[in-house]
Amino acid sequence: MMKLFHAWGSCSLASLIALEEAGADYQLAVISTKDGDQRRPDYLAVNPKGRVPALVTERGVLTETPAILAFIAQSYPQARLAPLDDLFAFARMQAFNSYLCSTVHVAHAHKHRGYRWASEASSFEDMRRKVAQNEIDCFRLIETEVLDGPWVMGEQFTVADGYLFTLAGWLEGDGVDIRQFPKVHAHWERTRERPAVRKVLALEPA
Amino acid sequence: MMKLFHAWGSCSLASLIALEEAGADYQLAVISTKDGDQRRPDYLAVNPKGRVPALVTERGVLTETPAILAFIAQSYPQARLAPLDDLFAFARMQAFNSYLCSTVHVAHAHKHRGYRWASEASSFEDMRRKVAQNEIDCFRLIETEVLDGPWVMGEQFTVADGYLFTLAGWLEGDGVDIRQFPKVHAHWERTRERPAVRKVLALEPA
Repeated sequence: MMKLFHAWGSCSLASLIALEEAGADYQLAVISTKDGDQRRPDYLAVNPKGRVPALVTERGVLTETPAILAFIAQSYPQARLAPLDDLFAFARMQAFNSYLCSTVHVAHAHKHRGYRWASEASSFEDMRRKVAQNEIDCFRLIETEVLDGPWVMGEQFTVADGYLFTLAGWLEGDGVDIRQFPKVHAHWERTRERPAVRKVLALEPA
Repeated sequence: MMKLFHAWGSCSLASLIALEEAGADYQLAVISTKDGDQRRPDYLAVNPKGRVPALVTERGVLTETPAILAFIAQSYPQARLAPLDDLFAFARMQAFNSYLCSTVHVAHAHKHRGYRWASEASSFEDMRRKVAQNEIDCFRLIETEVLDGPWVMGEQFTVADGYLFTLAGWLEGDGVDIRQFPKVHAHWERTRERPAVRKVLALEPA
């Protein structure tokens, strides 16, 4: 059975949603990044990067959200969580996930994790001041260039939708009103109502 | 015929190597990011993100290196540029590419593109001071956790190798001596000698 290492409030929610949508038989291991669990030796033995998600499979450990999402979609083809029979459409989905990972998530990370890229308190403050505008730029591009709806890939719900839902869920805490992006907002509400997503969200401690 | 928008000195080299290794029939469109070509209206019409690479296909435009690399590997299966028949191995390759994209490339980008995440000159200087150490941390992880050689995925050369070659090629300019990572260094030299890579590198103006 696969085992997902997950932290509430982190991007690993996207992998958790994908497993649930796939109908996978999996075990959930919750760690607390606030408590620094990801830097403890037992976790570093699983994922030397000290990050979530990490998906433990019978073949070994997988990391990096876009890779895990595509793997889940390919491993449970009957769940139709990616356009597996259309190379170009699959690549478009992967491009979207890669953008979320390398640009949108990175924009957000400069709010609380500026120490990854700088050392001075003044730099951290400077970075924090730019986070909301960077996120607005990213989500405006998603609103205008990607989302025709109801889902990222059109009529078919895919693993990309749980990923967008996860990152869009960070906007409010970063001081960005999601309602300025009507399609993103509608997508977020539509995703939240899916049975698999409701089930996953109900697991989070109050 | 596919058309790749590429800029010398950028990560689009990885996609160019992949096309050449695949034996693809493609057209190369070189733009200059130093001259700001990527922000001109005619390029923004191709890729609204204003970044390279962009791969124009008969179905539409693809962006984001990890997505383009997987697409090329899947489109030219006879070139064996990814472990297409092994879902877990394919996911491992994708995880490696995703790490290069979202962590290694992002670490490098803080040297000259700090304006993406901050506004003050003092922040840019602070970021620049941390670039070399961040790259050392990334390549130490690649050296110790990933590379057994001769290639990233073991015996089989894949699109991940051209990507690693591309980013490892930035180390010297960032003040990091690649020779402190013997496996990465050997991999870089091994990749440089491949006929397809030599052919691609010879295209760069002196």
